[in-house]
Amino acid sequence: MALTTEQRVRRAAVKLFAGKGFHGTGIRDLAQAAKISTASLYHYMGTKEDLLTAIMHESLQRLLQGARQATGDVTDPHERLATLVALHVLTHGLRPAETRVVDHEIDALTPARRRLIIRLRDEYEELWSAAIADGVASRAFSVEEPAVTRLALLEMCSGVARWYSPRGPLGLDELAAHYAQLALRMLGSAHSDCPGAVHRASEVVTTVWRTPL
Amino acid sequence: MALTTEQRVRRAAVKLFAGKGFHGTGIRDLAQAAKISTASLYHYMGTKEDLLTAIMHESLQRLLQGARQATGDVTDPHERLATLVALHVLTHGLRPAETRVVDHEIDALTPARRRLIIRLRDEYEELWSAAIADGVASRAFSVEEPAVTRLALLEMCSGVARWYSPRGPLGLDELAAHYAQLALRMLGSAHSDCPGAVHRASEVVTTVWRTPL
Repeated sequence: MALTTEQRVRRAAVKLFAGKGFHGTGIRDLAQAAKISTASLYHYMGTKEDLLTAIMHESLQRLLQGARQATGDVTDPHERLATLVALHVLTHGLRPAETRVVDHEIDALTPARRRLIIRLRDEYEELWSAAIADGVASRAFSVEEPAVTRLALLEMCSGVARWYSPRGPLGLDELAAHYAQLALRMLGSAHSDCPGAVHRASEVVTTVWRTPL
Repeated sequence: MALTTEQRVRRAAVKLFAGKGFHGTGIRDLAQAAKISTASLYHYMGTKEDLLTAIMHESLQRLLQGARQATGDVTDPHERLATLVALHVLTHGLRPAETRVVDHEIDALTPARRRLIIRLRDEYEELWSAAIADGVASRAFSVEEPAVTRLALLEMCSGVARWYSPRGPLGLDELAAHYAQLALRMLGSAHSDCPGAVHRASEVVTTVWRTPL
């Protein structure tokens, strides 16, 4: 399937922003990588910041939509939390460049854009907070600092985008299962694993990320 | 105490590299921030990559030296691991800019420099691997994937540089203690905390980072 010009520009931008940073990427680099003129680039995508905002917005929307789909009908706190962890790990392992751009470049945005993206990120993290809070309320989890624990969990899982290689000894599904186990341990859960979580997350990731970015 | 020109350039570089990325920082930005000419900048510091290498090298040396000092006479696996975690969290909370530069910009280096820095990082991570392996051997820890668990722990702790604010509700010592507890849980340890770890790490951090960067 041939890519549209917009898709070609997006891909080039994700790769360059992830590799050289937003501030390190010039409009000329982008145009050259996408094989169009800088005038066409502006025409299709607007400014460099428009492009960064669009990439972050789409990536967070997919993550949020995926998390809602994967956990919507899961009531057991262990399964719910393990599914969120698995989804986050799979997404970061499969899409390291996009997710790294979202995780590292929020400060590059001007205030209004920044607020928009942070609101989306907060909406996503709220799913984690609620899963942790429900688990604490039902005594499935035992956590002293739920907010800190949520941040520790998210950073641990986002880190996968910085080190995971599909050429390594561990497949991504195994990695996601292992991370779910680590997360349940961190939450003081007696459950050691949730066999359904990776499968559930894996199906959703396939659907949500099917369309090319 | 007045800063030397070299210290002033280093500080400006750490701030700019952390904020705009290595590729996003120009020699002119550096000279302007350090209030010297670009010619003097070259004279004092060499190229932009020399500066990046020096910052990474020094930061990793301090981390490595600190970890050796803090754990040198600690034989109990729980205490040893908790001390490494506390030291890493304190360092990343106190020096978010330097540590972020080390964690995010290794790919900006040319191969020979990259190998030098990765060797130092490996030496540091080897202290973590050994602490985990010893804990597993003595049955203090129970871990299925020690290498993955080490990476998960390190990413979780490094993440502190990305979100911690001293204006937040939690002091850095409390945060370090909480992270040590999370780490011990991840390792399947029956110990819930190691009261000496934060104190030990805190003393070493004060010594190792006393000289200004």
